[in-house]
Amino acid sequence: MEKLAVLGCGVVGSGVVELFEKNRELIGRRCGKALEMAYILDLRDFPDKPYANKVVKTIDPILADPDVTVVAECMGGVEPAFTFVKACLEAGKSVSSSNKELVAEKGDILLETAKAHDCNFFFEASVGGAIPIIRPLHKCLAANEFSAIAGILNGTTNFILNKMIRDNMDFSSALSLAQEKGYAEKDPTADVEGHDACRKICILSSLAFGKHVYPASVYTKGIREVSLRDVELSSRLGYAIKLIARVERLDNGRILPTVMPMAVEEENLLSQVNGVYNAVAVWGDGFGNVLFYGRGAGKFPTASAVLGDMIEQVQLAHTIPAQTWENTHSTDFIETFDAFCAKRYLRISGTDVSVISPLLGKPANMAFDGNETVCATAGVMNAAEVAALREELTKKGMSLLAEYPILES
Amino acid sequence: MEKLAVLGCGVVGSGVVELFEKNRELIGRRCGKALEMAYILDLRDFPDKPYANKVVKTIDPILADPDVTVVAECMGGVEPAFTFVKACLEAGKSVSSSNKELVAEKGDILLETAKAHDCNFFFEASVGGAIPIIRPLHKCLAANEFSAIAGILNGTTNFILNKMIRDNMDFSSALSLAQEKGYAEKDPTADVEGHDACRKICILSSLAFGKHVYPASVYTKGIREVSLRDVELSSRLGYAIKLIARVERLDNGRILPTVMPMAVEEENLLSQVNGVYNAVAVWGDGFGNVLFYGRGAGKFPTASAVLGDMIEQVQLAHTIPAQTWENTHSTDFIETFDAFCAKRYLRISGTDVSVISPLLGKPANMAFDGNETVCATAGVMNAAEVAALREELTKKGMSLLAEYPILES
Repeated sequence: MEKLAVLGCGVVGSGVVELFEKNRELIGRRCGKALEMAYILDLRDFPDKPYANKVVKTIDPILADPDVTVVAECMGGVEPAFTFVKACLEAGKSVSSSNKELVAEKGDILLETAKAHDCNFFFEASVGGAIPIIRPLHKCLAANEFSAIAGILNGTTNFILNKMIRDNMDFSSALSLAQEKGYAEKDPTADVEGHDACRKICILSSLAFGKHVYPASVYTKGIREVSLRDVELSSRLGYAIKLIARVERLDNGRILPTVMPMAVEEENLLSQVNGVYNAVAVWGDGFGNVLFYGRGAGKFPTASAVLGDMIEQVQLAHTIPAQTWENTHSTDFIETFDAFCAKRYLRISGTDVSVISPLLGKPANMAFDGNETVCATAGVMNAAEVAALREELTKKGMSLLAEYPILES
Repeated sequence: MEKLAVLGCGVVGSGVVELFEKNRELIGRRCGKALEMAYILDLRDFPDKPYANKVVKTIDPILADPDVTVVAECMGGVEPAFTFVKACLEAGKSVSSSNKELVAEKGDILLETAKAHDCNFFFEASVGGAIPIIRPLHKCLAANEFSAIAGILNGTTNFILNKMIRDNMDFSSALSLAQEKGYAEKDPTADVEGHDACRKICILSSLAFGKHVYPASVYTKGIREVSLRDVELSSRLGYAIKLIARVERLDNGRILPTVMPMAVEEENLLSQVNGVYNAVAVWGDGFGNVLFYGRGAGKFPTASAVLGDMIEQVQLAHTIPAQTWENTHSTDFIETFDAFCAKRYLRISGTDVSVISPLLGKPANMAFDGNETVCATAGVMNAAEVAALREELTKKGMSLLAEYPILES
């Protein structure tokens, strides 16, 4: 009988315990070994729960028990999660983590520690909740050179934008509703400002391109400034504004990771991802493109991903080389945001096409509303070109009221 | 240096060789071992190809070389593929197959053979081409009890239906176009009659529910009878007609696999899968639902999936227990089509609501065109209830001109 342990019995941790107990027989059959959930680390007691007798208050009994081979970390935050996970790996126990902050900040060190002690550090649950994305990237698609990844990786902001798009709700009201429904935290900064999505694109970028990408290297812009007016007008041109976490490999070999609201064509499946769902699209040389879609958060969806990792870890006798990346604090391989080029959705005060058209070249698409013009540019622009356009428009007595990069399909 | 071999140098096999050579260094790094493509089995010669010197005419040198640890089978058909794959497995060499016919007909035997010789038989490429679906099902989602799977698993029929839906082309013209473009074979039976999709749902059902499901146990209906009129009229009610391969677990514990044209709501992402793309949606108790989307066929997409298997197989020292199912010729666990229940899209000759409504109960949705009525039923019906309705309508001098089950989201 191999023993499992869970660190942190909050929403995800309790989900891991409950889903394991529910499907225990099935899980044992599928992984070829009988398993027992032996320890749950939490400072609280859970006297009314069937697992009350498994709760421990320190990590010591888990580290000391040689039958514990696999541990789930569902605490969140960098500390004490990092110290605990590192100690487990050093004891040769594999760890599955749902903690994107931990993986984005300390993944390289933990992967090295796992390798040094011939066990595995997995984190399928850290990106996209229930959606299988980590394992497909590093196993199913391992024969490919990746060129880009683009995803809706934060359910809270997607719910808010969706309410703006579908129900004409403004940002503040949609945020309040998300808080009421429990989708947004009381302090919604991490979601709304894009930090959560940023951690997730760091993890996917590190895995796809082989070097640790830290959150500080990622251009990150949240959705607080997205106006209902742009949601409405971009929709007339056939776009939905979504918070897109994205990375591309440029021709110079560098990668350019970004998190920002982008205009997504209605034909693109990412534009159809509603509510708290997540989706990730990936491009590579052999497979072309694939998309993964599902619940990006929640108790049992996230627990499903953690347990999937644990089931594989029980079967693996050694470190697997595939799921890893290089420990580097260099940012040489990361391009700065100045180099980011995309077609743009623009909203301009004024409707005089004889002034606008010469500045823009021929737009791909144009509409007018009141005394404003919205259009999609036919060609790509970088930030400097957008700034120059802004200046030119000002000289002509007009102004660039809003601009969103358009996501290429 | 571990050696690889490929059986069959057709479209997929040559793709495996070419993608491997292109990304050889990357693949070696990701799987932690230097690899060499050593043998290609084919009756033909390929004097102009860089791999001409690797071509062998019999399986013997591959079986005899102890350094060959992993073999790709890309021949198609049951024989001689079955004999060759079995011989490789018996020699302790892991095999990755892109051959859905082989897996659907002989998967149980080959999985047993692999287990007996402590190697692995994988087949990620046999369903959904490049789309990671096999590994996500049996690894990432392994902690879940599955309740249903529904997918568009045949690109040829999806291309044809798409041309009917979008370009108002009739079935025969769309089929001819698919043949011109090389999407459909000269003899399109396997695609058009649903046999190809049937093999794929057999594989997914076997994996999800743990017992071998043979093609003969699956109710299979192709798209030959789909009329342009129903494509048009169902679209007015908000549905797209798609060839859906599906399996569900019923309350009695049995499973019910089907392949047939179904009406898919426009809100459902499966209705938006265009051209030769494939998509698979899966439901389970922990994760809720996920969807996978990508290229379902083609040289490099399929090669990507084969190589993904091979990369993992090189790393695995022993049989993994997860990717397997029970060898059984019993069909006890499979429900017959009589038990299949779904809401229905109906097309009826006549427009007299006072006659139709009492027979149907209150329809969810209704429209009229010329002297015909189309509607979506509010409640589910099984085949016997549809037959009874047909009879009742005939008695009233009307007729049931077409009916399609509606796919539940």
